[in-house]
Amino acid sequence: MIRITIIGSGNVAQHLIKAFTKSEGIEIGQVFSRKKESLTHLIESDKIVTDFSDLKEADLYVISVTDDAISEVSAQLPFQNQLVVHTSGTSSIAVLNPKNRKGVFYPLQTFSKSKAVDFSIIPICLEAENERDYKILETVANRISNAVFSISSEQRKALHVAAVFVNNFTNHLYQIGQEICNEHQMSFEILKPLIQETADKIKTLNPIDVQTGPAKRNDFGTIEAHLNYLTNENQKNIYKILTQSIQHNGKTL
Amino acid sequence: MIRITIIGSGNVAQHLIKAFTKSEGIEIGQVFSRKKESLTHLIESDKIVTDFSDLKEADLYVISVTDDAISEVSAQLPFQNQLVVHTSGTSSIAVLNPKNRKGVFYPLQTFSKSKAVDFSIIPICLEAENERDYKILETVANRISNAVFSISSEQRKALHVAAVFVNNFTNHLYQIGQEICNEHQMSFEILKPLIQETADKIKTLNPIDVQTGPAKRNDFGTIEAHLNYLTNENQKNIYKILTQSIQHNGKTL
Repeated sequence: MIRITIIGSGNVAQHLIKAFTKSEGIEIGQVFSRKKESLTHLIESDKIVTDFSDLKEADLYVISVTDDAISEVSAQLPFQNQLVVHTSGTSSIAVLNPKNRKGVFYPLQTFSKSKAVDFSIIPICLEAENERDYKILETVANRISNAVFSISSEQRKALHVAAVFVNNFTNHLYQIGQEICNEHQMSFEILKPLIQETADKIKTLNPIDVQTGPAKRNDFGTIEAHLNYLTNENQKNIYKILTQSIQHNGKTL
Repeated sequence: MIRITIIGSGNVAQHLIKAFTKSEGIEIGQVFSRKKESLTHLIESDKIVTDFSDLKEADLYVISVTDDAISEVSAQLPFQNQLVVHTSGTSSIAVLNPKNRKGVFYPLQTFSKSKAVDFSIIPICLEAENERDYKILETVANRISNAVFSISSEQRKALHVAAVFVNNFTNHLYQIGQEICNEHQMSFEILKPLIQETADKIKTLNPIDVQTGPAKRNDFGTIEAHLNYLTNENQKNIYKILTQSIQHNGKTL
């Protein structure tokens, strides 16, 4: 049985508490939260502590707080030489206070409070200072997910940039699609199956191999017609730059 | 029983043949194809004609050929005053020869030969010159799909531009995500659940309401760090312009 203490009560912390509670071979020893009430629906009240000095021995301490607070929280822990990880995609392993053994336990997903998540398919990115600590993190991660990856702090930086492209930017393109529909009195529902199919295709095929459209086939007539059709200069710029990028296969001109 | 004749043997034509063959109340009268062999796996050989003069009476003629060929094919039809539609997203209803009653029967989806499609969820965009012809198209469309929309030629133009944003451009962002992963020795598999979740979210929520990330929260530190991190100028430009667009909520500056 691996005993885990969670430090934090936010979105990711709550999803982790739920996932660990359901997992065999893992026991949540304690949860640290400034406000006890925010977690009483998830875990027995006597396991919630509000003072760092009440933290007991555990095999793993998971700090799941805002990026800005990780360093300070890790410094306040009243023990040393324990395995302490954070769950951030953007912070380096180095922000953790060196009095403990450091690591990262980063679930790569967009969590929202209202939507349940299937943790088993969420990639968990792990980092540790030595093989022994890595093995502990790997054992824990394998209990809640089927997609566990060893990712260095340097790689995690790149991963976060890539996630901005495929998540934040993609969602913004959906928004533009919706706006164009609205402007012409069409329901966004018309585009939804196409959006799903676009995401489905790359489950098994490489994006570059399934690229279609006027940019890909150098259909200059259609590209010109689309650019003339768009009246929003911002949409026009995005159309131009992404068309060029597809034409040059993602390479700098 | 509605009798339909398909003219063409390409991707969309073949998917339509399959869908109509399975549907009650619809009968495929004939299929016109320059090469008989390309369709014998889908339909009885005696229903395939290679000469326009062999075309018999039908309730609906569906021209499913390349955009450039629609006009000429419609002119070659050896009859008049029949209901003739094309299946193109980009061509106006007006490209059809006026000797017949014109219409559009446009299934909005990316079809690939290798991948089976569930036609019932594919939006079908209809246009006709009068209410009576529209009703015929609507009856046929409802037999194969649960998502039937009345879309004018003008709206269809806008829809095609919107589809470029949510399909072509989104797929290109996936490609960039994969390239960033590859450059840093990470598997693209790590990003796939995030891509699926991004597409899933907008099934029930508006894209604008679920936008997250450094651009949305005006996290200038992270944006600057990402721009410094990207070495490919093309990726950097795309990052900049989409970040600005999110910051200005899709409006022109």
